[in-house]
Amino acid sequence: MKVGVFDSGVGGLTVARSLQQSGCFSELLYYGDTARVPYGNKDKNTVTRYALEAVEFFNGTDVDCLVVACNTVSVTALAAMQQQSNKPVYGVLEPGVLALQQLEGIDNDARILIIATRSTINSGAYQQRIQALGFHCVDAIATPLFVPIVEEALFEGPILRETMHHYFSELVKPDVVLLGCTHFPLIAPQIADYFDGAKTIHSGEAMVAWLKQELGLTNHFSQTPIQLLASENVEALQRTAKHWGLAGT
Amino acid sequence: MKVGVFDSGVGGLTVARSLQQSGCFSELLYYGDTARVPYGNKDKNTVTRYALEAVEFFNGTDVDCLVVACNTVSVTALAAMQQQSNKPVYGVLEPGVLALQQLEGIDNDARILIIATRSTINSGAYQQRIQALGFHCVDAIATPLFVPIVEEALFEGPILRETMHHYFSELVKPDVVLLGCTHFPLIAPQIADYFDGAKTIHSGEAMVAWLKQELGLTNHFSQTPIQLLASENVEALQRTAKHWGLAGT
Repeated sequence: MKVGVFDSGVGGLTVARSLQQSGCFSELLYYGDTARVPYGNKDKNTVTRYALEAVEFFNGTDVDCLVVACNTVSVTALAAMQQQSNKPVYGVLEPGVLALQQLEGIDNDARILIIATRSTINSGAYQQRIQALGFHCVDAIATPLFVPIVEEALFEGPILRETMHHYFSELVKPDVVLLGCTHFPLIAPQIADYFDGAKTIHSGEAMVAWLKQELGLTNHFSQTPIQLLASENVEALQRTAKHWGLAGT
Repeated sequence: MKVGVFDSGVGGLTVARSLQQSGCFSELLYYGDTARVPYGNKDKNTVTRYALEAVEFFNGTDVDCLVVACNTVSVTALAAMQQQSNKPVYGVLEPGVLALQQLEGIDNDARILIIATRSTINSGAYQQRIQALGFHCVDAIATPLFVPIVEEALFEGPILRETMHHYFSELVKPDVVLLGCTHFPLIAPQIADYFDGAKTIHSGEAMVAWLKQELGLTNHFSQTPIQLLASENVEALQRTAKHWGLAGT
């Protein structure tokens, strides 16, 4: 199975890496809309228009399905994309929620913290689904500064520490942090440490678990080549992919 | 004289504010390309394409001239814009360099620090012009994190302090800091303090001085109404304009 992976920029590479490492897929084709990144503070109509342009692109390729490796797009434009696509389209929202439900040692009294871009948080999409499952201690905050901090590769150190303190210091300590932005897995260890070892949910790992379950996939590819495309400056995307540990980049 | 002001997003509002406060202009029309902001990490072809679309927009309006209130665009696409525009187009680069040359108490031995987005720094445009004037102690560094920090209104406090430390701690103390991004005037006092009272050059103030000199303008408008337009979410632009102190917003 050849999978298309779409993101506004580089963040979705964390999802692509999980897909690649799962060994369930023959090939990946990644497209990042780097000419218009980031989507996280843009409005619904704009994000939907850009997402549908990506669907048009993937409609003309030989991928078997399309993974939306971006929470903002998944929350905002998934239904529109599914309608316009000539292949199945999977967003990261449902897999993330399912991963939460399946976490060991977590019951409905657990305190859940959702962190994401402003548009993902403002949509209320995660909050509604998680509360509908019976979790009743749910905090949700927009943490937009984590995106450029990750893009500047400041995965640890005082800027990240002060930014975590800025966003987190007034919160009750969560048991689980749902990383509602595909940039955030790169700082997941620091976030878990800040909260004394809270569990974290990662969109890429959640997507792999969900696709395995949904499509009955098993691991059998020892290598999954990835082709990287971008709306501008594909060299920068390639450098980031290499830096973030994607095989063959 | 009615002036058009173009920026990728909200940053150019600092320039619009200087134009407004100068009293030299009858009216301002501001257009921010908020659907595709930021431009600072995007490549030359992309920025030029977006800038020419803005020129097309202003060609259809009644403004008498167009101010490019964005260093990235001024450095990257000014000549292309001037060619395609049906009115004069002014960038912030020449005014900033002239302001440096005219600073009191600053001679060619002064140490100059240029801070800007990655694309502005990488272009070398400021460095070349400033060195051509005879300044021989010139540092230039990209400080991209200041942009989202300003957009999050964190104009002071520990995140800004740690970020300044990250970018500045290894530098020799400058006498003048050229703020090569229109977001940076909002943190100019903190930057000046970090460097024990270094002078700062602000694209908006530099543009006003330069237009006065270039066009022989005198102050005579007690009010300069501003109309704000955006490629998306003009309400957010209006809120920022109000927050940043633009009159009548």
